[in-house]
Amino acid sequence: SVNPDLASERQTSSFSVERLTALLDGGAEQTQIRRAVVEAIESDPVFSRENQYFQTQNERYEAAVRKAVHLQKKMHEMGWTENGPEYKYLYRALSGDVAFLLHRVFMRSISMLGSDKQIAKWIPLSTQHKLIGSYAQTELGHGTYLQGLETTAVFDTATQEFILNTPKISAMKWWPGDMGRSATHTVVFAQLYIHGKCYGIHPFIVQIRSLQDHSLCPGITAGDIGPKMNFEHIDNGYLLLKNVRIPRDNMLSKFCEVQPDGTYVRQGSQKINYFTMTTVRISVLADEVLTPLMKACTIAIRYSVVRRQSKLKPGEQEAKILDYQTQQEKLLPQLATAYAFHFINDYLQELFNRGYGEIQRKNFDMLPELHALSSGFKAVITQHCTAGVEICLRACGGHGYSLLSGLPSLYTKIFASCIYEGENTILLLQTARFLIKCFMAASSGQPVPPSVTYLAAVKHGKCPAKNKLDFLSPDIYTEAYQHVAVRLTSSTAAKLQDLIQSGVKKHDAWNQCTVQLVQAAKAHCHYIAVKNFAETVEKLETKAGIQKIMKHLCDLFALHGIFSNTGAFLYDGYTSAAQMDMVTASYLDLLAVIRKDAVPLVDAFDFTDKSLNSALGSHDGQVYQRLYEWAQKSPTNQMSPAYERYLKPLLHNTLSKL
Amino acid sequence: SVNPDLASERQTSSFSVERLTALLDGGAEQTQIRRAVVEAIESDPVFSRENQYFQTQNERYEAAVRKAVHLQKKMHEMGWTENGPEYKYLYRALSGDVAFLLHRVFMRSISMLGSDKQIAKWIPLSTQHKLIGSYAQTELGHGTYLQGLETTAVFDTATQEFILNTPKISAMKWWPGDMGRSATHTVVFAQLYIHGKCYGIHPFIVQIRSLQDHSLCPGITAGDIGPKMNFEHIDNGYLLLKNVRIPRDNMLSKFCEVQPDGTYVRQGSQKINYFTMTTVRISVLADEVLTPLMKACTIAIRYSVVRRQSKLKPGEQEAKILDYQTQQEKLLPQLATAYAFHFINDYLQELFNRGYGEIQRKNFDMLPELHALSSGFKAVITQHCTAGVEICLRACGGHGYSLLSGLPSLYTKIFASCIYEGENTILLLQTARFLIKCFMAASSGQPVPPSVTYLAAVKHGKCPAKNKLDFLSPDIYTEAYQHVAVRLTSSTAAKLQDLIQSGVKKHDAWNQCTVQLVQAAKAHCHYIAVKNFAETVEKLETKAGIQKIMKHLCDLFALHGIFSNTGAFLYDGYTSAAQMDMVTASYLDLLAVIRKDAVPLVDAFDFTDKSLNSALGSHDGQVYQRLYEWAQKSPTNQMSPAYERYLKPLLHNTLSKL
Repeated sequence: SVNPDLASERQTSSFSVERLTALLDGGAEQTQIRRAVVEAIESDPVFSRENQYFQTQNERYEAAVRKAVHLQKKMHEMGWTENGPEYKYLYRALSGDVAFLLHRVFMRSISMLGSDKQIAKWIPLSTQHKLIGSYAQTELGHGTYLQGLETTAVFDTATQEFILNTPKISAMKWWPGDMGRSATHTVVFAQLYIHGKCYGIHPFIVQIRSLQDHSLCPGITAGDIGPKMNFEHIDNGYLLLKNVRIPRDNMLSKFCEVQPDGTYVRQGSQKINYFTMTTVRISVLADEVLTPLMKACTIAIRYSVVRRQSKLKPGEQEAKILDYQTQQEKLLPQLATAYAFHFINDYLQELFNRGYGEIQRKNFDMLPELHALSSGFKAVITQHCTAGVEICLRACGGHGYSLLSGLPSLYTKIFASCIYEGENTILLLQTARFLIKCFMAASSGQPVPPSVTYLAAVKHGKCPAKNKLDFLSPDIYTEAYQHVAVRLTSSTAAKLQDLIQSGVKKHDAWNQCTVQLVQAAKAHCHYIAVKNFAETVEKLETKAGIQKIMKHLCDLFALHGIFSNTGAFLYDGYTSAAQMDMVTASYLDLLAVIRKDAVPLVDAFDFTDKSLNSALGSHDGQVYQRLYEWAQKSPTNQMSPAYERYLKPLLHNTLSKL
Repeated sequence: SVNPDLASERQTSSFSVERLTALLDGGAEQTQIRRAVVEAIESDPVFSRENQYFQTQNERYEAAVRKAVHLQKKMHEMGWTENGPEYKYLYRALSGDVAFLLHRVFMRSISMLGSDKQIAKWIPLSTQHKLIGSYAQTELGHGTYLQGLETTAVFDTATQEFILNTPKISAMKWWPGDMGRSATHTVVFAQLYIHGKCYGIHPFIVQIRSLQDHSLCPGITAGDIGPKMNFEHIDNGYLLLKNVRIPRDNMLSKFCEVQPDGTYVRQGSQKINYFTMTTVRISVLADEVLTPLMKACTIAIRYSVVRRQSKLKPGEQEAKILDYQTQQEKLLPQLATAYAFHFINDYLQELFNRGYGEIQRKNFDMLPELHALSSGFKAVITQHCTAGVEICLRACGGHGYSLLSGLPSLYTKIFASCIYEGENTILLLQTARFLIKCFMAASSGQPVPPSVTYLAAVKHGKCPAKNKLDFLSPDIYTEAYQHVAVRLTSSTAAKLQDLIQSGVKKHDAWNQCTVQLVQAAKAHCHYIAVKNFAETVEKLETKAGIQKIMKHLCDLFALHGIFSNTGAFLYDGYTSAAQMDMVTASYLDLLAVIRKDAVPLVDAFDFTDKSLNSALGSHDGQVYQRLYEWAQKSPTNQMSPAYERYLKPLLHNTLSKL
């Protein structure tokens, strides 16, 4: 039975939840496919996540391997293929709790970087799981700065082999997933040396474990890097190479080859390859970043209408905590953010598909823009979504802090997204470099890519809003965001030029502007996200209340951004203090409006109870009952040796009853 | 041997590290006592925290119990007493990794709330550990709002007993520390009923486990609530009471008593008791909140001078990451925050000691102010320190994300401080209520407590700064903070009045202002923190460079607050855009200045390597070596059954070498 406090929230929905779900899925047909996949996975006990919060790192790893192996069988049974429509829903259905994700990266890197001959040899072996692949790039001493990697691969013309070495401890490979315990092979990135000359970083296929008994191969030291803040199910590993010899054929040679005599030959254009790397940043967003925020919103909002605490009015029943303005102000902007980023993700996917087409036609013009967008949005989306999950966790108080709420694991996992696939600050500075370059170009009348043409149109006007309702006009707020983005880019460009003209060296000057450059890059992405949300809303169907509620969320997303960052808008008087009061008033009004539809808005994300795996967030709102049931299963409720060992001697047993 | 990149940082210190340590400790003699305690604890293998990051929740609990029991023996051996000078350093020396903390709360509640007779009976038993106490207040359905607690205690005149019950699942006690597995007794807070009439919440001593065999007493259901985001070493528990009868004497009766015939008698003033509750919020700050931030700063800053990544200038060696402005801007404000809050903590302790004296003289005038300060600062300090630890963790990239860095456990533990001892938003609203009340009083010419007299002096002036150096003047920035605090309080008071005058009911009006009330409360505390830091610096000895470096940190703390919250200062034109540019310039300049002393500034916190328990933060800076050594000890490097079970069948064993 559904908790009446939750049930009542669903009776007054201003829109059709089912239609909104279909919109999010990209059509009702997709919803159907997704639900079928989820049903098949969740009804199979091998994929169960029950008791997950009680498991050790070793148990989590074993379960992930078991699931990965079973998944092959399941796919075969169900007739799902890697190119079929079901495939993209698998990871979400498994909540990412599965091993061998790096096996796919291993395969992709061979497909992208290998010669036809290499692809013909390795891809079938990989597909049939006759080996387990990994991808060994990051080292103890180097992450983002790839040129600094220290592993060496020296070509030996006598034996036609590469000799791989870890010259010092900081050169040890560190972090590669599936490498700590599972992988038999890996792609190692190493500095290539021929006849004593260094040719930079290249990829090499290296076998690390025996296919007979899984023992480490000669010259290989490898293992698991130990406990992390999350990702207990993944065996992130280390790898130390000592005079490991591999045949010449094992250097992936689509773009570069070492000929038998040691001649180094570069062939083809790597540009498409860089592009593929760029798209990886975007491809992880939906499953690894947006889904966790949507889950966290679902859990926190459902809990907030079931939890009653204190009284809003004396003499009345205790109030649902979502009726407090402060609770609304915590959660509803996160909900708006989840929708905003869902739509920007659609936009980016579409843009990158278009980009891919262009690049295949050998038109590389879009590359810098795509690189800047993927870097900036990876940083901004991971940052906001991580902060959002944290807010959801805190908004659930003590119960949020229990692992049984599901929120701590969502949080500690999404947290990593700010670090992996490029550390966020570094990425924002890459976006900023693009912005500065385009701003300079635009200022001197040169053409610039579409997403930054707005930089050319520096306006010194003022915000035209006259009352609080004007701030519900997308034109008004989108222009305000645009104004801020232009101002931050132009003022930082000016500072940079001033410094250089005053004699500061170019690189020092850049460093001295980086704090402000990061701000400019964020403002650019924020502007595009707001603009895209507004444009998306405009195109939505007006039926079933969808457009109306999405318009509210778009307004909230935009006004929350202004309210949380008033200085940027007030600074040069573009927005006046009186207008800022209007923003605040409209923003707070919106909270009360969206609050009414809060539960239907998270219901539309369509998570099953099993996928939420949360004692606080299930469909029926039976929070306290579930917390109690789950807690009783905890291994901490088994008898502890601590009593016999320590407590019994301490307590003396002198008194039977006080 | 010390990593030369770390060693070089210590050679150019502008101040005496040892003198700064003594300042932080409150004198060189205190430093000596603290070090002796740390040495005694750390040299005893029973207290070792080695391998802690590899332990399960059960293992952590057992270790904590073992340590708690051993601590009694140790104290006896060392001649340390609970009133001795060593006692206050014990918890820090153990890094809080010890059981039976709630036993002390149990004792304190009896001392505070019990009659002389009750104290005479229970305190000696507790002191001799003939029982283990806990404190059962929070329920599944109620935390902050104590009046809502649902556990009942019905007085039975026939038997002269109270009958305790958990009437529904939401009334189950939930969270009490030491109760899940250890406690034999607990203080239960329940609604007292006599002859059918409810007299509100009262405390009762209840035995929950046998002193013979530790089995649960009749009518008691109790256990552990399971895994949490941290606090694995504590057995937070649940408790369900079914017709549990306790003698009339077990109601703690210093302030209220039920006489044999059921007459309810209230006696004495509870005010001193409320005051004691208030001080608990302040008393946890040093060990649970400031120490973790100081540790996180130590780890992140030492790591940031050892880690080299990418190049600042082409052709040069890779740069220490602390040389990047963005890394400085992440870490150095956290360092300044740690110092700022260390000094505000001193201020609060002193104020509360003074308050205690007044209250013992039956002068309760200071109570509202102390309550407002303890609530506001608990919220602001826990919030900023938690955010600071998170920033430190992220600033260490992937290695920060490894448990071996020590940062994830610092973070997930301090995180709880935002929730326990009063949820932060609720606390800030209590401070805000005090501010509004005082503002109204001050506006009508009535006297107000010292910390809020500034509210009476609403100034409509402008910031007088003329160049960036002016913003290094404490008068300039302290006044700016004051201006903002007054403005936010007065404008919210005005909104509140407007709403009420326009017919909105008082409670609705309050709710509609809460987002802004929270801002006002934060601004008030931030102002006091800045002012106190500036006043503290003024009084410091000028010798040994101490005052100079503290002045820099004070400036940084103040300017960071303005830089991060420009809107509040720009809003009404108190600070102009040109002045904000000066703030930015001075702020960024300061980063480069303080960066030079960053390592000595964390060295002064004087943490041992054992207490940091971090592969990244040790004194010698041998980061990579230690990560590798520690990882090898992880249980994830033992043989896993996953190979035989899942991998071997998968890999087919068809190929021996590819």
